[in-house]
Amino acid sequence: MTTELAFIAALRALAGTPEARGLMDDAAVLEIGGEKLVLTLDTMVESVHFLPDDPPEDIAWKLVAVNASDVSAKGAEPLGCLYSHALGEESWDESFVAGLAAACAHFRMPLLGGDTVRMPEGAPRSFSLTALGRAHGPVPSRGGAQPGDRVWVSGTIGDSGLGLAALTGRGADGEAAEWLAARYRRPSPDTPLGPALAPWVTAMMDVSDGLLIDGQRMAEASGIAMTMSADSVPLSDAFREIAGDELAARLAAMTAGDDYCLLFTAPPEHTARIRETAAGLGCEVNAIGRISAGTGLSLVHKGVSVPLPDDLGYRH
Amino acid sequence: MTTELAFIAALRALAGTPEARGLMDDAAVLEIGGEKLVLTLDTMVESVHFLPDDPPEDIAWKLVAVNASDVSAKGAEPLGCLYSHALGEESWDESFVAGLAAACAHFRMPLLGGDTVRMPEGAPRSFSLTALGRAHGPVPSRGGAQPGDRVWVSGTIGDSGLGLAALTGRGADGEAAEWLAARYRRPSPDTPLGPALAPWVTAMMDVSDGLLIDGQRMAEASGIAMTMSADSVPLSDAFREIAGDELAARLAAMTAGDDYCLLFTAPPEHTARIRETAAGLGCEVNAIGRISAGTGLSLVHKGVSVPLPDDLGYRH
Repeated sequence: MTTELAFIAALRALAGTPEARGLMDDAAVLEIGGEKLVLTLDTMVESVHFLPDDPPEDIAWKLVAVNASDVSAKGAEPLGCLYSHALGEESWDESFVAGLAAACAHFRMPLLGGDTVRMPEGAPRSFSLTALGRAHGPVPSRGGAQPGDRVWVSGTIGDSGLGLAALTGRGADGEAAEWLAARYRRPSPDTPLGPALAPWVTAMMDVSDGLLIDGQRMAEASGIAMTMSADSVPLSDAFREIAGDELAARLAAMTAGDDYCLLFTAPPEHTARIRETAAGLGCEVNAIGRISAGTGLSLVHKGVSVPLPDDLGYRH
Repeated sequence: MTTELAFIAALRALAGTPEARGLMDDAAVLEIGGEKLVLTLDTMVESVHFLPDDPPEDIAWKLVAVNASDVSAKGAEPLGCLYSHALGEESWDESFVAGLAAACAHFRMPLLGGDTVRMPEGAPRSFSLTALGRAHGPVPSRGGAQPGDRVWVSGTIGDSGLGLAALTGRGADGEAAEWLAARYRRPSPDTPLGPALAPWVTAMMDVSDGLLIDGQRMAEASGIAMTMSADSVPLSDAFREIAGDELAARLAAMTAGDDYCLLFTAPPEHTARIRETAAGLGCEVNAIGRISAGTGLSLVHKGVSVPLPDDLGYRH
């Protein structure tokens, strides 16, 4: 893992333009003809980011969804995508394209171009997708949180992690488990929410690796201290039904990742506007913490300070 | 191969927007704030597009060069790139980044963002790069050649193919062979030439798979007939020194690929302007054929019709 961090440091030295945001943010931002173009790239590798027997439709869906989530978190509306396809077995590829078509339609992210390559026999396949979005207003970074801000999250946290557990036989059966498994297989970020919230936030990113680790990253990038209240973290009915809502379950939710919710900060005076904006789009948002002067992430539960778990989420 | 064509046909059905150019062109074109953004994506896979023992600096250079070539052929100036890196052995990755830095500087294509992934143990690695360019004028497609146009090519043809033969022990040794090998390892398309020529051409693309096969693709996309004169095809001194300049050598050059030269068509009245534009940039351009009504590609040598070789270049 140290190797990867060293490598990324070497790349950062290379990415010297302001548009690259020092490769510290989730997306690059380019000004073109007075408009702001947001660009993001994600790669998914067989046996690393998905399993060989995962349904190909779902792999394709997720490839589009994770990039659409990044575009939304930067306050941008999707413009389109380019993707690189590693050819495989014919019917598998057909199913993959069906999933890609469904996701491109759902997220309003038309396919603009790409490349197809043939892998050597037996090699794990990988798929890269570059998504483009256009921001009409400000493009929030991870690094803008200010002392006094509230910390917010959209949607519910932990569904995907519990869904994966259900799929891999480590969790429960039944209707709630199926609902959670679908949340894992086909993440559906509320992509219109990002651009709608962007004018009112000081920092914004999507939660992909875990609420705690992503919160820690936002705190670090902003140079402030963030406190999250575990008891304020929104859980779905299905999550509560299976895992309950005690602290242990909440910590599991906050470190599971694959949520593709928005984590953002905003001054308290924007609270009513933020609630109205989300309600107008049929989305849930919840205030889950505070920003203060200082550094690092800390956690409280029902008003009492609790230690951070050793593992805050997925590190890479 | 049929599978790949069928797959691309399925993708084309998905790419319904005009910006995608039906995935038939080398790049997508997006209008943003009154400017034209050109987007292209290329993936290079170990043991398919490069060999495991190729120098990592050269692999990285080529990844940038082939995309810079596509951007130039669409009349655009480079804006930047995003790329996906498959992590490997530490010193290999460091050398790769050094090559990437050199190429990004050479082609004025700053790194804006990307992704790094860890592959499963022993898996061949793949690298995807998305390049962005901005066109201030027209964005030539493959499909605009008109009867009466001249067919032009920039640079010299066949160097890279002969360089690969030298590297793999199938060719000659010596200074000329080394020069050709460097042309294979570090293709250096004259990227300022594309945007400079764009206002005067009817169709333009880069020669990547072989002059003959790319010429046939341009003829097909334009719905016209193209005739190339083998004896007019420009060969480098090094190429002539090793392979001579008889028809067989010329046919080898015209089917070798990896040239990253510009193939373009223009009305005869622009001949002087095209020569001046190229000379002003220190580039060589040569008229090598004619467009007429009809279909398909045909070949003449010293005024005499010659049959096309069975294999016109690299098909994928």
